[in-house]
Amino acid sequence: MLPWRNAYPARTTKAAESVTGVATIPVSVAQLRVSLGAYALSDDGDVVESAREVEDVVVPLAHTEGGLTASVQRGAKAVELSGGFVTHVVADRITRASCFVCRDASDALTLARWIGSQVDDMRSFLRASESSELSRYAVLREAKTHVVGPMCHVLWRWTTGDAVGPNMMTRNSYALNMAYVLPNAPVPIERALLEANMGGDKKPSFEFFQSGHGKTVIAEATLTDEAIERVLRTTAADLDALSWAGTHGAVASGMQSVAFTPASAIAAVFAATGQDLGMVGTSSMAHGTGRRVDGGLHASIRFPGLEVGTVGGGTGLPTAHEWLTLMDCAGPGKVYRFAQLVAATALALEISASAAMATAGSENFFRAHFERGGLRH
Amino acid sequence: MLPWRNAYPARTTKAAESVTGVATIPVSVAQLRVSLGAYALSDDGDVVESAREVEDVVVPLAHTEGGLTASVQRGAKAVELSGGFVTHVVADRITRASCFVCRDASDALTLARWIGSQVDDMRSFLRASESSELSRYAVLREAKTHVVGPMCHVLWRWTTGDAVGPNMMTRNSYALNMAYVLPNAPVPIERALLEANMGGDKKPSFEFFQSGHGKTVIAEATLTDEAIERVLRTTAADLDALSWAGTHGAVASGMQSVAFTPASAIAAVFAATGQDLGMVGTSSMAHGTGRRVDGGLHASIRFPGLEVGTVGGGTGLPTAHEWLTLMDCAGPGKVYRFAQLVAATALALEISASAAMATAGSENFFRAHFERGGLRH
Amino acid sequence: MLPWRNAYPARTTKAAESVTGVATIPVSVAQLRVSLGAYALSDDGDVVESAREVEDVVVPLAHTEGGLTASVQRGAKAVELSGGFVTHVVADRITRASCFVCRDASDALTLARWIGSQVDDMRSFLRASESSELSRYAVLREAKTHVVGPMCHVLWRWTTGDAVGPNMMTRNSYALNMAYVLPNAPVPIERALLEANMGGDKKPSFEFFQSGHGKTVIAEATLTDEAIERVLRTTAADLDALSWAGTHGAVASGMQSVAFTPASAIAAVFAATGQDLGMVGTSSMAHGTGRRVDGGLHASIRFPGLEVGTVGGGTGLPTAHEWLTLMDCAGPGKVYRFAQLVAATALALEISASAAMATAGSENFFRAHFERGGLRH
Amino acid sequence: MLPWRNAYPARTTKAAESVTGVATIPVSVAQLRVSLGAYALSDDGDVVESAREVEDVVVPLAHTEGGLTASVQRGAKAVELSGGFVTHVVADRITRASCFVCRDASDALTLARWIGSQVDDMRSFLRASESSELSRYAVLREAKTHVVGPMCHVLWRWTTGDAVGPNMMTRNSYALNMAYVLPNAPVPIERALLEANMGGDKKPSFEFFQSGHGKTVIAEATLTDEAIERVLRTTAADLDALSWAGTHGAVASGMQSVAFTPASAIAAVFAATGQDLGMVGTSSMAHGTGRRVDGGLHASIRFPGLEVGTVGGGTGLPTAHEWLTLMDCAGPGKVYRFAQLVAATALALEISASAAMATAGSENFFRAHFERGGLRH
Repeated sequence: MLPWRNAYPARTTKAAESVTGVATIPVSVAQLRVSLGAYALSDDGDVVESAREVEDVVVPLAHTEGGLTASVQRGAKAVELSGGFVTHVVADRITRASCFVCRDASDALTLARWIGSQVDDMRSFLRASESSELSRYAVLREAKTHVVGPMCHVLWRWTTGDAVGPNMMTRNSYALNMAYVLPNAPVPIERALLEANMGGDKKPSFEFFQSGHGKTVIAEATLTDEAIERVLRTTAADLDALSWAGTHGAVASGMQSVAFTPASAIAAVFAATGQDLGMVGTSSMAHGTGRRVDGGLHASIRFPGLEVGTVGGGTGLPTAHEWLTLMDCAGPGKVYRFAQLVAATALALEISASAAMATAGSENFFRAHFERGGLRH
Repeated sequence: MLPWRNAYPARTTKAAESVTGVATIPVSVAQLRVSLGAYALSDDGDVVESAREVEDVVVPLAHTEGGLTASVQRGAKAVELSGGFVTHVVADRITRASCFVCRDASDALTLARWIGSQVDDMRSFLRASESSELSRYAVLREAKTHVVGPMCHVLWRWTTGDAVGPNMMTRNSYALNMAYVLPNAPVPIERALLEANMGGDKKPSFEFFQSGHGKTVIAEATLTDEAIERVLRTTAADLDALSWAGTHGAVASGMQSVAFTPASAIAAVFAATGQDLGMVGTSSMAHGTGRRVDGGLHASIRFPGLEVGTVGGGTGLPTAHEWLTLMDCAGPGKVYRFAQLVAATALALEISASAAMATAGSENFFRAHFERGGLRH
Repeated sequence: MLPWRNAYPARTTKAAESVTGVATIPVSVAQLRVSLGAYALSDDGDVVESAREVEDVVVPLAHTEGGLTASVQRGAKAVELSGGFVTHVVADRITRASCFVCRDASDALTLARWIGSQVDDMRSFLRASESSELSRYAVLREAKTHVVGPMCHVLWRWTTGDAVGPNMMTRNSYALNMAYVLPNAPVPIERALLEANMGGDKKPSFEFFQSGHGKTVIAEATLTDEAIERVLRTTAADLDALSWAGTHGAVASGMQSVAFTPASAIAAVFAATGQDLGMVGTSSMAHGTGRRVDGGLHASIRFPGLEVGTVGGGTGLPTAHEWLTLMDCAGPGKVYRFAQLVAATALALEISASAAMATAGSENFFRAHFERGGLRH
Repeated sequence: MLPWRNAYPARTTKAAESVTGVATIPVSVAQLRVSLGAYALSDDGDVVESAREVEDVVVPLAHTEGGLTASVQRGAKAVELSGGFVTHVVADRITRASCFVCRDASDALTLARWIGSQVDDMRSFLRASESSELSRYAVLREAKTHVVGPMCHVLWRWTTGDAVGPNMMTRNSYALNMAYVLPNAPVPIERALLEANMGGDKKPSFEFFQSGHGKTVIAEATLTDEAIERVLRTTAADLDALSWAGTHGAVASGMQSVAFTPASAIAAVFAATGQDLGMVGTSSMAHGTGRRVDGGLHASIRFPGLEVGTVGGGTGLPTAHEWLTLMDCAGPGKVYRFAQLVAATALALEISASAAMATAGSENFFRAHFERGGLRH
């Protein structure tokens, strides 16, 4: 009865305990022209750009939403005619949010100051450890403390190489909590909690929206009036009006993340490439902007935390690996490239979906959905 | 080079335009004991419970996170020893958020009052239409207006049967905008925008968190002290302390959705059963609670909007259909059952993950991740 | 030592227990041209407009911020040249948020459904009561329930005549909780809490921002290009650009209330007229918009909940009464008039302050503050 | 007709342009026992505690809310019996949020990096300036940049001595924008906006809630069971249950600031002491906690940004100066003392108001309001 087949390789069947089958999602592709930055982490943990090149890249999209791939492709085509996407990696940090419950705020404040003073030593402690439990890929960058009541919340901020890194930073954070903070703290600690919600791990929050969790990436494009008319069948004025109403609609409904439909694109690339689908919601937090400029419209989207990896997790699954390879994003040294391509894909969809909504009565959007409704009811 | 195989059936290859391959995700299963309500929509659009039965159900989880299925199973076992989950469907509405831009707020207010007075007629209009473009499954329930500046935002609220329904409500909303509101409005309308962000379609917002989008579901369980100790290896006092610190951590970081890790479970069930993965973020919006009671701890989670369907979208894919069948959730008449099972699965994970964090130093959590880190780096 | 003077009348010295002195704040005035609606509550609790008239009204501003009154006056002058403000009262509700803690969510849901079915009877119960503790001014309009965990939160929604009404609705809500709900509830109730934070009483929240608390009021004006240039020394294009950047700045910083500086105006009118200064924060929640139109710029501000009264509270203080009288807003039947004037005053300041910021480098703003810095350091 | 009297001194009549009268608010007092820290700013801008002393201080409260002063006093008495309040100043920063609009995100990112590299030089530039327009009290501490679209938002973070400092930091920020950034920027800047909403000036936001604006202060107290019973007429268990339900009610209603009623206390002290009443909403942003401990209950409140001054603004008004003098908070060197007393006063009210709500049916609260309803309707 179960859709289980012996044909699947061990990478698939051993990906989790008690695997008994698979889920298979169709994948279609779109092609994007992108000016990609070449980035590397500095010793201080800054993301530094060293070069920039325009490429045409094929992006895989796993989904069953009729019209979605066509919409991404349409947005990408309009941008290509306008000179291509430009993408930037702005920062790289991922956070495990521990919490130490003390007797009172006085003690919690003392602990917070002490933790602030120990970050260099903590880094050395982790580096010096011989424990096989610790990950060398997860490098402690900062420790942000936030005292409320008797709680000293600590956001351990890490870089994690080419993996998303939740497990490696969990192990290292745990080591800091248990082997560094607890034995050495200047005040008694009643409870040490490894995770107490401040960090944004699979949980959208304003902290996540502003300070990030994963790769902070901006994608932008300046659409020409001609591309807007020929490909998107609308005008810069219409797009501008939609952006205005949509931003105020977002405010009126209390969106923390103000954009049009980034989650559709994020989910589709994540599902194709073996990313953690539990991170679709957080990685889709975004801030989109639109602005008329001479001869067209500037559009951009800022992702505070794309939780992407090119090694680890599901990226080793056979299909994921093949799709990552298609993008030249498989394996070490590719994570900033991959993050930029995810952002550009999302911007392509933002542009096309907005265009569909921007015309009188959103007639285009309606037709797109009506004619290509696919499997939808 | 592409992982494309001719072996896939047409349901898969025609799910989207230009499908050129697949993504395959391993699926493992957990078993839950749940008191499920039998629900039906009343004529007024209320969700009414008619019966209730305890069942043991197998739930499929598609993911590559080592330890996740084991954690769900552990939570489910603790709840089973305590008498099982109890789940409730509270409401059912999905929203398309249109916006009419008028000359000024005076006109927008006039329009809003008029729309409020026309809902019955609009319903008749849709019912009477012969257009094949319109869906009979999408029934207009209410129209909530919100005027800000010259904008009259309208949240068209629908029920959509056993499908999630974005396409069907899009078509019907468009018909209302273009064929009912525009020709009959008592004031001039400058722009009619089919979607302007207030409705929550793939966009988490406070409006979504409070008023819902999809099925509003609550799952709960009262854990016994014995189950907490034997299965979860912690105590009610420890769980209570974690819940307290975690709720304040959520507040401190500006989470709209306050729970521990619902997205992991939502994503895993969605990926297995052909749900729209772009809705993982919104459907994971949740409000979890924990409270000590005599002899144990009451735990619950409220999902304001599980965007789930048992027909349409990806549910017709071969693997999705098989996994839905395993849960007895395939096809018409099953959507409230499915929504309850999704919520119960998420609560199982909340309980187990919280237990892992609740002990001194969260030692259990660390071990769980360390020993079963699976494919993670 | 204390600044106490026997000269103060009894209304002042008996305003609170143990009054031992006074605080005196200077008041200056501005004049506004406003198209004011005449409003009355319908039997169903809707605010209905019956007439509209343009008036020139003097508004008192109590504050020590150099330049503030001049700025309000400048904005008002620009609007006057453009035809005047137009104001609308959209709704009128104030809320006491009680909470009943039950055994579990099942019971809480049963209670919620029951409360929903009893609102008419509750209204009759309150009307029929002979208790001198109850207020006839506070009329129950709706009861919104929200179940999370074992809690059944209830937002008792009231109209309260010409007073703000926190005390009268507190008394009546208490009566409902203790004398109606507790004895008649279909499930056991463990705790009845009169206030549990959902209602917005002196606490800004998204619920407050969207659903209101007090009078929901919109003020608008369509500025002409000439008035913008002559009075505000800027252009519609500059104002539009500032509005765009400011709205995105608001989003980026997580403002729930998106406007420029409404609190300055709200506080100044409130302090002059004896309103509750603890409500300055909530009453300042606002949603401002700006939009270029042919020949100028449309500006508006929506206040979801102006918590204003023309009777009760501090409105009976001698100075407050005189200032209210100056506005023709003292006593019964004036509260909707007063609410509209508060909103218009705030919009005057929004326009002027925005204009000061909208020019290159915000030179005007700087000069305004520099030259009229008043008592500020 | 106007309540104008020649008797007022020039400090009052010249506080703003065109002063034509006054508003007079009755003031009552409460006495608090507080362990106050002695704090000073380090060269790096950290707030450093050098000593701590317990004092009994009288706090003035200007308001017309019957029962408010009595409630503050009751809370203070319970705390006094329990050993007194303990208060902490955690940080001191105030922000002017400027924005530079560039051609695109590429340029905005270049500008952001450049600004980050120039902070030391900017500080020197301000120090070296001979301009009488600049304030030496406002010291630039950091510049936080946030790029979204073509906007480079900059949060200029200042310390401002004993004044709140909006005018002085406005002048200095303007100087930086116009005389430093614009002439030296490495990219073209299209617009320099002095204020674009990210900073929290009179505008509550998550950024404000977490990072502060003014003095970040925590007040705490550990109530004994005896004090809870004798003075507050309730129990630690009841207070704990109220805190739990109230925190979840806050989450459910989307409060950014989670506390019970801080605005009442903040407004009353601000009105008495000449603080800017337009800052009541922001300064009332707070995060309150309650937690059972052996023998009682720990209660605390964190204010991220108390915008208080002991010089400048309205503090020079005759009545304000007298009330500040009563608290030993008038003039230079007193602002951290004053901030702590404001926080302790608010916590006194939190405790008392919570106690009133915590008992069965909140009977006490009802009586308090009913019997001492004062001027309220």
